[in-house]
This record gives sequence, structure tokens and C-alpha cells, in this order.
Amino acid sequence: MCEANAYLCKDGKEELVLEAVDVLENEGDQVRIANIFGEQKVVKGKIRSMSLVDHKILLEE
Amino acid sequence: MCEANAYLCKDGKEELVLEAVDVLENEGDQVRIANIFGEQKVVKGKIRSMSLVDHKILLEE
Repeated sequence: MCEANAYLCKDGKEELVLEAVDVLENEGDQVRIANIFGEQKVVKGKIRSMSLVDHKILLEE
Repeated sequence: MCEANAYLCKDGKEELVLEAVDVLENEGDQVRIANIFGEQKVVKGKIRSMSLVDHKILLEE
């Protein structure tokens, strides 16, 4: 299982946005994320970093 | 093994930049990518999209 959890960095804290993320798409000033269960979220912000081995995606506003 | 291959979209083609990528970091107008073998590359551009299940990361200039 190679999905990752997506967190939004906000005020120095990491807030879980979506678990088991498969797809990320950068769309201008927002990021669309979708997980393996078919759930989707659109986050205003951008991808800051990720570690696939740690299964962690960090987004920032 | 949850790494992904990173491709750069250039003139409508996908060019392999680095295999077995673990870490991506967005640094202003460039993206630093590092793989599980300790190789690093810095690409001028940004993350366009990725699918972790397909092990594919797309960057664009």
C-alpha cells in the first residue's frame, strides 16, 4: 500500500486533511487530492514537500 | 517499495528525471527530489501531479 496521508501546515501545526491519498493535482492556487476510497478534497494552497517512504504529504496555504 | 518515478513534462513529452524517488521539496521556483539511493536532483519547475498507486510524479517547467 503506497498511499500517503496529506497534512496541511497551518500556524505551525500539521492538520490531517486526507488519509490514503493516491492522486494529487496542482491546479493553480489549489491542490486537488483524492484517496484510494474515492474521497476527494480541494485545498487552497500548494504542495510543500513529501516523503513517500514515510507516507507523508505536506501542503501549505 | 513506495517510491515513484519522477518525470518532467517538456514539449508534450515525459522525460524521466529520477527513479525511486522518496522525497520531494518545493523550493520556490524549483523542486528538489531525492531517491532512496541518495541521489538528488533539483529541477526548475513545479509539481504538476502525481499518482502514488501508479508510482508516478509529473513535474512541469
